[in-house]
Amino acid sequence: MNGLMQEKPLLISSLLEHAERYSAKVEVVSRRVEGDVHRYTWADAAKRSRQLAMALDDMDLPAGSRVASIAWNGYRHLELYYGVSGSQRVLHTINPRLHASQVAWVLQHAEDDVVFFDASFVELVRTLQPLVPRIRHWVLLGDQVAVERINDMPAVVSYEGLLAKHSGEYTWPQFDELAASSLCYTSGTTGNPKGALYSHRSTVLHSMVLSTPSALSIGPQDVVMPVVPMFHVNGWGTPYCAAMAGCKLVLPGPALDGQSVYELIEEEGVTLALGVPTVWQMLLDHVDARKGTFSSLKKTTIGGAACSSSMQKHFEDQYGVEVIHAWGMTETSPLGTTSSLMAEHLSLSREEQQQLRLKQGRPVFGIDLRIVDDLGAAQPWNGQNCGHLQVKGHWVISSYFKDDCNQRLDDGWFATGDVATLDANAYLQLTDRSKDVVKSGGEWLSTIDIENIAMSHPAVALAAALGVPHPKWGERPIVVVAKRQGSAVTREELLGLYQGKLEKWQTPDDVVFVDNIPLGATGKMLKTELRKQLVNYVLPGTVESPVR
Amino acid sequence: MNGLMQEKPLLISSLLEHAERYSAKVEVVSRRVEGDVHRYTWADAAKRSRQLAMALDDMDLPAGSRVASIAWNGYRHLELYYGVSGSQRVLHTINPRLHASQVAWVLQHAEDDVVFFDASFVELVRTLQPLVPRIRHWVLLGDQVAVERINDMPAVVSYEGLLAKHSGEYTWPQFDELAASSLCYTSGTTGNPKGALYSHRSTVLHSMVLSTPSALSIGPQDVVMPVVPMFHVNGWGTPYCAAMAGCKLVLPGPALDGQSVYELIEEEGVTLALGVPTVWQMLLDHVDARKGTFSSLKKTTIGGAACSSSMQKHFEDQYGVEVIHAWGMTETSPLGTTSSLMAEHLSLSREEQQQLRLKQGRPVFGIDLRIVDDLGAAQPWNGQNCGHLQVKGHWVISSYFKDDCNQRLDDGWFATGDVATLDANAYLQLTDRSKDVVKSGGEWLSTIDIENIAMSHPAVALAAALGVPHPKWGERPIVVVAKRQGSAVTREELLGLYQGKLEKWQTPDDVVFVDNIPLGATGKMLKTELRKQLVNYVLPGTVESPVR
Repeated sequence: MNGLMQEKPLLISSLLEHAERYSAKVEVVSRRVEGDVHRYTWADAAKRSRQLAMALDDMDLPAGSRVASIAWNGYRHLELYYGVSGSQRVLHTINPRLHASQVAWVLQHAEDDVVFFDASFVELVRTLQPLVPRIRHWVLLGDQVAVERINDMPAVVSYEGLLAKHSGEYTWPQFDELAASSLCYTSGTTGNPKGALYSHRSTVLHSMVLSTPSALSIGPQDVVMPVVPMFHVNGWGTPYCAAMAGCKLVLPGPALDGQSVYELIEEEGVTLALGVPTVWQMLLDHVDARKGTFSSLKKTTIGGAACSSSMQKHFEDQYGVEVIHAWGMTETSPLGTTSSLMAEHLSLSREEQQQLRLKQGRPVFGIDLRIVDDLGAAQPWNGQNCGHLQVKGHWVISSYFKDDCNQRLDDGWFATGDVATLDANAYLQLTDRSKDVVKSGGEWLSTIDIENIAMSHPAVALAAALGVPHPKWGERPIVVVAKRQGSAVTREELLGLYQGKLEKWQTPDDVVFVDNIPLGATGKMLKTELRKQLVNYVLPGTVESPVR
Repeated sequence: MNGLMQEKPLLISSLLEHAERYSAKVEVVSRRVEGDVHRYTWADAAKRSRQLAMALDDMDLPAGSRVASIAWNGYRHLELYYGVSGSQRVLHTINPRLHASQVAWVLQHAEDDVVFFDASFVELVRTLQPLVPRIRHWVLLGDQVAVERINDMPAVVSYEGLLAKHSGEYTWPQFDELAASSLCYTSGTTGNPKGALYSHRSTVLHSMVLSTPSALSIGPQDVVMPVVPMFHVNGWGTPYCAAMAGCKLVLPGPALDGQSVYELIEEEGVTLALGVPTVWQMLLDHVDARKGTFSSLKKTTIGGAACSSSMQKHFEDQYGVEVIHAWGMTETSPLGTTSSLMAEHLSLSREEQQQLRLKQGRPVFGIDLRIVDDLGAAQPWNGQNCGHLQVKGHWVISSYFKDDCNQRLDDGWFATGDVATLDANAYLQLTDRSKDVVKSGGEWLSTIDIENIAMSHPAVALAAALGVPHPKWGERPIVVVAKRQGSAVTREELLGLYQGKLEKWQTPDDVVFVDNIPLGATGKMLKTELRKQLVNYVLPGTVESPVR
């Protein structure tokens, strides 16, 4: 027997309709590629998204067609989020930091028919055009004047020109909520990129739970600024949450330097900003240098890489901005865990609370976690035992797009490739990437611990822990360090940092200084590249130890 | 083309599984019918709910069977919420304040097979047993000792006895999320009760959105106490939200007097309490009298009836407890609107903010509102024009249970029976029940405004505005007032209150004092009864004016 409730699919267009209907005058503010600040309202965003949907209809793109974007965070990209998905097409957000050949590969793989791109990426598009002849339409996210500036590319049309042809009198189609809505490729450090194909249902459910206090707590009084790019797992879902809450949304465009981000936060009264540690370090450096304060910013969500204790204290103790540490992946939409405290922790000291909140946090409703050993046996939740982290839930992928090998799920669980502990309250702590694991004397070591301790030294810009073969222990860790410009630190000083923090056997045997640690397109360290650089390294006291 | 996300139904059992898995040690605290305070954890609640599911299997109740509860807010009722719905049966929560004949009527209409009841309702059950022979099992929510105390009712078995027979080793079934989960009858003031049949999907979606800052903002640091009964629209959904957030839940049992509620709030560190104005007035009177303070309570959600300005200021200005005014109905699960401020209102004065927050508030995502005139034409959202309030959304009923007349929806919209205004920001303000409308000179008057103004006088316990026929204006309003015990106020004093607050034509023509205003089972004024009492009333200056 079914309930007698109204039947209505969970569609992305309904988020925008909600914002348009009930928060029509609330602003969406964007720093544009052109450099100026653009402001309009959710009502404007809704109308233009409908105009876009009509333009896509005109391009003869059937339901399910893939439409690519190569764009920064801005109002036109927002319109693509709603106009493409809302009209039952699939928005494929592309990371422009990938090499042109990789971009061409994902355009081919996704079978995109159209590419919408910011003026910043004209040169990339010039390279792509001969590589991907299947693309029928190249649309510059600008007006006709901007198109004329690049008049040697005749195949390009202007976004504003397309929209201007349509009234916006359009009703969002109603369809099955399981329909695909957007596509995002992981920039794997090995092998070809793999695509996560989100559905309307998974996206809307993710938005609902992301908005709760168990996660980011986004409400109508917030002013939300995703500094995380909209090509990274849908800007972590915030462009959807903002519409759902009917709150002001601030999009920083390409200007992610400390000064630009800071000015936008202060001028627009941002209360919640989201980003990766690298960008936040630029912001903090800028605010430190000008002895500024944050007058509106209450919270910052940090994900993409672990937040260091020093960054947490910098935001919280110096500037009164609460850090919400979060963990997720492209394959998890991305929300997996957030480091919110439970009621029982409110009596802890601030220091203890901060320590706890440096963990990746607890799973939100809709996500399940477990840790298993190499044989798949569940490991205890005691904060000590490590295991391969597996995840399942409403917004976790079942398989990759056009992936023949359907072996990704282990009894319904997605293997994250992370190694982690869980404690009795289900606080997750990542200790490693599975492929980066160092095993010494039969025990897993945490390379992340080793890296975080090294990075707590002010002279260290970046640190990478690697395993090297050892005749007795099988493997021993070393730490590879890139120093900050103009800073100095010795091997002995760094090794001294580990005393009292890690056991002797968990402490690296050596420190290797390098000029740079190679980074991938999403800012993650490329340890495979690093290992190639260190091919001639020999661990002191051993005969020959090629790093693995 | 569908997305490639994991498929998992939205089931009520998954809320409890989440609490059990990730917040196992968090407490559920109940004041029992026996008078003592009972404490256990979400892990205990989960195990016992599974034991209950096994006991229901033993009773041979197929999927979809209706299982009735007549119970206060307590842990055993919580187990019914999860054990009954989780095992694909339908929990029918009964309002014990209804007349026994009405309870018998809903038991028959729902076709309940089993009744679970608190010891408080032994006498009611004694009356019911011969009236509803179809009930196969009468289960007392207590142990064998409690059953033996009523040994003249041989058909009754003990809940604890039932549970003790089962291990709790049970896996929640997975089934279609559209399946019915629970059933709640509206205690209409006219006609037979009508049943709202909720689904798993509607309940889980409602819980997600209810937990966001656009509504109640419930997170893992909260301690939530529904003082609103669990037989009123599922305790406004909070027993589900608490499991979803993994937060502490406090259930006050039958003791709703000011002292009992206050002690539980203080002893258990309640941060969010939910209830109707009548109960809150008892609480405030108690705290006033003992000159107490609230040491943990941050917010109180008030629904069921409009919150007066004086109650709002009492909570907020005197005790620092924020009032969240909310509106909903049995037919809307119940969340429709909450009176949260938008970012633009943060610069208003506290007084202006409070005034705005006295409105019923804005619709949350998932709910749509509109106001229409008698002919169905949409009315403007200007805070002035009244219209019949209609609603639609994921957790709004499509029709009543076993209701032949399928005319309840108007082009997909459910007619609430309320008359309201909406302003430009979609803040809802109820002005009337459609059937209570007073129309003077062709214009709708707000009886709610008239009542609220009268009730702002400290001597007024309750006020009801009624329309009386008038030879010139068609109808004119009067206000019927019940004074507080030992308080005095004159007709002229009350009429003076309206000056400067309402226009002359909106002001009642007369004040009628009565000893008591009749209330229905859910505390709503029974204006039909009141009209009968005043059958001999004549409006001054007119010849004969039977109140209508």
